[in-house]
Amino acid sequence: MSNTQGYAPLDSETLPSRLVSLPVVTEQLGEDIRTWQVREVGDGNLNLVFIVQSGTASIVVKQALPYVRLVGDSWPLPLSRSFYEYHALSRQAVRAPGAVPGILHFDEEQALIVMEYLSPHHILRHSLQQGLIHETLGETLGQFCADTLFKGSDYAMDAATRKHDVGLFSGNTALCDITESLVFTDPFFDAPMNRHTSPQLDSVVADIRADVGLKLAAQRMKLAFCSQAETLLHGDLHTGSVMVYEADAKVIDPEFALYGPMGFDIGMLIANFIMAWCAQPAYATESDDRLAYSEWIQTVIEDIWRHFTRQFTHLWQTQRTGILFPSTLFEDQGHAAALDTALRDELHRIWTDSLGFCGCEIIRRTLGLAHIAEYDDIENPDKRAECEAAGLQIARRLLVDRERIGSTTEVFNLMQRTAAEVET
Amino acid sequence: MSNTQGYAPLDSETLPSRLVSLPVVTEQLGEDIRTWQVREVGDGNLNLVFIVQSGTASIVVKQALPYVRLVGDSWPLPLSRSFYEYHALSRQAVRAPGAVPGILHFDEEQALIVMEYLSPHHILRHSLQQGLIHETLGETLGQFCADTLFKGSDYAMDAATRKHDVGLFSGNTALCDITESLVFTDPFFDAPMNRHTSPQLDSVVADIRADVGLKLAAQRMKLAFCSQAETLLHGDLHTGSVMVYEADAKVIDPEFALYGPMGFDIGMLIANFIMAWCAQPAYATESDDRLAYSEWIQTVIEDIWRHFTRQFTHLWQTQRTGILFPSTLFEDQGHAAALDTALRDELHRIWTDSLGFCGCEIIRRTLGLAHIAEYDDIENPDKRAECEAAGLQIARRLLVDRERIGSTTEVFNLMQRTAAEVET
Repeated sequence: MSNTQGYAPLDSETLPSRLVSLPVVTEQLGEDIRTWQVREVGDGNLNLVFIVQSGTASIVVKQALPYVRLVGDSWPLPLSRSFYEYHALSRQAVRAPGAVPGILHFDEEQALIVMEYLSPHHILRHSLQQGLIHETLGETLGQFCADTLFKGSDYAMDAATRKHDVGLFSGNTALCDITESLVFTDPFFDAPMNRHTSPQLDSVVADIRADVGLKLAAQRMKLAFCSQAETLLHGDLHTGSVMVYEADAKVIDPEFALYGPMGFDIGMLIANFIMAWCAQPAYATESDDRLAYSEWIQTVIEDIWRHFTRQFTHLWQTQRTGILFPSTLFEDQGHAAALDTALRDELHRIWTDSLGFCGCEIIRRTLGLAHIAEYDDIENPDKRAECEAAGLQIARRLLVDRERIGSTTEVFNLMQRTAAEVET
Repeated sequence: MSNTQGYAPLDSETLPSRLVSLPVVTEQLGEDIRTWQVREVGDGNLNLVFIVQSGTASIVVKQALPYVRLVGDSWPLPLSRSFYEYHALSRQAVRAPGAVPGILHFDEEQALIVMEYLSPHHILRHSLQQGLIHETLGETLGQFCADTLFKGSDYAMDAATRKHDVGLFSGNTALCDITESLVFTDPFFDAPMNRHTSPQLDSVVADIRADVGLKLAAQRMKLAFCSQAETLLHGDLHTGSVMVYEADAKVIDPEFALYGPMGFDIGMLIANFIMAWCAQPAYATESDDRLAYSEWIQTVIEDIWRHFTRQFTHLWQTQRTGILFPSTLFEDQGHAAALDTALRDELHRIWTDSLGFCGCEIIRRTLGLAHIAEYDDIENPDKRAECEAAGLQIARRLLVDRERIGSTTEVFNLMQRTAAEVET
């Protein structure tokens, strides 16, 4: 994909002179680069991210590095991830209008995307630490999932176009490999890059690694991740991939995009809200016990699933233009009612898968390489371990019992019951 | 894929002068093209097939036409199918040595494959009409399925290599489209190209098209076909894609190759044996009631599944070198026994899927565009309809009850019971 011959990473000094030749950039910032202010703000694990401001406007410049930023050049990672991010963003922009930042420019050789600066947005994860409520967040995220998942599948797309896209995204192997290893395998044995709150969680970790039923369940989810090429996924839809301001929310960073199972993005998203919920007791102060905020987090989870199913149902009924369950076989034959059964079964299948992926995500964010700020920022290790242990216990049940947990209410019951058990 | 600029279909006259420049051909046939005898023998639905003989040797030349041969140039079909056939054949030759004809040459521009002439082999379907027994047939076919399906999956392959292959074969859209339409959709409504034995089967056909549970089941199998990119499939593994001579059997014609669900090839294969079994009463003579032959067909079905599971198990235990159920998580942790559960569940999942695909294949070969010689050659339409009706009834149960039918014995019971009911 990417030709690395002419590639050179940007820095704050070189960025203006290198981008001033792009009309799409100077239209925003003006041509006088002396007025441009450049800040490197990348706090993710992989890339360079610059905010460039002039008197007139601001833009974001995201550039891939040929290695994992978090680890350094000992862990090479292809620049082509920028190509996949660009193609995923383009498709998401069409399928879920307004849900992702606008793209101004893509340079494949430089692995560089110039995009809309979202202001005064911040990463959703920070809100979850600070106890900030965002109205309609669950609705926005649930609809985003329904729009992108439905419209990237054989329910909606022309079959040949979809297969072409499957081919296109099949090249994103290096980032799939990260997910395959870090989410589904490494946390379940003593892999070198793992870390966990020790010694507090040592016995829980030993339990998890001895739980063969759990390991089998995780591998079944991995099989689904690797082989169920149902739709174009974001691939890394956690609460660090969502920018928020008040009631606005935008989804960013789809460089892990792949064709995969419908339930993956939703499961990962819900997992991150469950972990944020588990972390809340550690953020309680005398003036705010965080109980109301914990309830709001539950509401978000409920809204994600409710609005996902509502929008998926709407699209199923109005935009089912793909090759699956075609109207020639159902509506045209007076058999429209049968489609309700098909839709219900399909939503149930997505739900079940999403619980499995949810469990894997919680476990890997607690025992694997990449953790979450909500846990990491709890300074008292005993308190942190208590929050993490609750999350792990919930995750185990979600993963192993995914076929038997039928609703968000049952998930909430599990969460409440587990939190109470861990506290005592 | 194929550049059609320089493409020109061969005929018996032009073939020698066009192929004499290929050393790999003249090594076999010699350089004196006056000694070459060319016969066009393509009896399939899509391509030109030539047998070229000289005093010293024989070869087969298969060339794609830019349309469906069975229908004519009103149904265009890309020459690139030859490219996919070549790549599928190459992989099958490595994964199941000796199970496919040897490739001597591939010319992408001419959509042409020169390959080993199998002699004195004939198409398996003819044996099933003539009542010829082939020792070890089920073993060969079951092993072929296990070898190709396991070794093309994430159980065995390097993950990046497999994803590259998923990308490669994702271009075979036109041939997938044929399967998607002709197998999973057209037979279930009054599609223009359908045909069936009429009026004898009219009421059965009406029943099938009114059976919403059956249609939903067929669409679920279509969803699996389109999205479960588990392994490289042959994609058209019926008894017309197998050449036999005595105890030798070779699999040919993988131009429908795609990444799809493990159960597809096995299901299609078993379907064709079940139909051959259903047709046997019509081939009975005074000297041969075909009962022994019917039993042999059952034995083949049993052997296919038995040897598939045996070889799949062997490969699982000895060549599980892919990213799924890795030894780091199981054998290395003293949890090898858990893998028996995983294997059993996986074989059950493949079995269930294969019954669903089996049902679809029987229905489409009886009510769709492409039928089978075993049925078509039954001249008495009442007798033919009786055989076909039995097959259809078996197919409906396999498709709808696929989760509840646990063994080949149960399949045979269903076959016997259904045949007895249809006769009375």
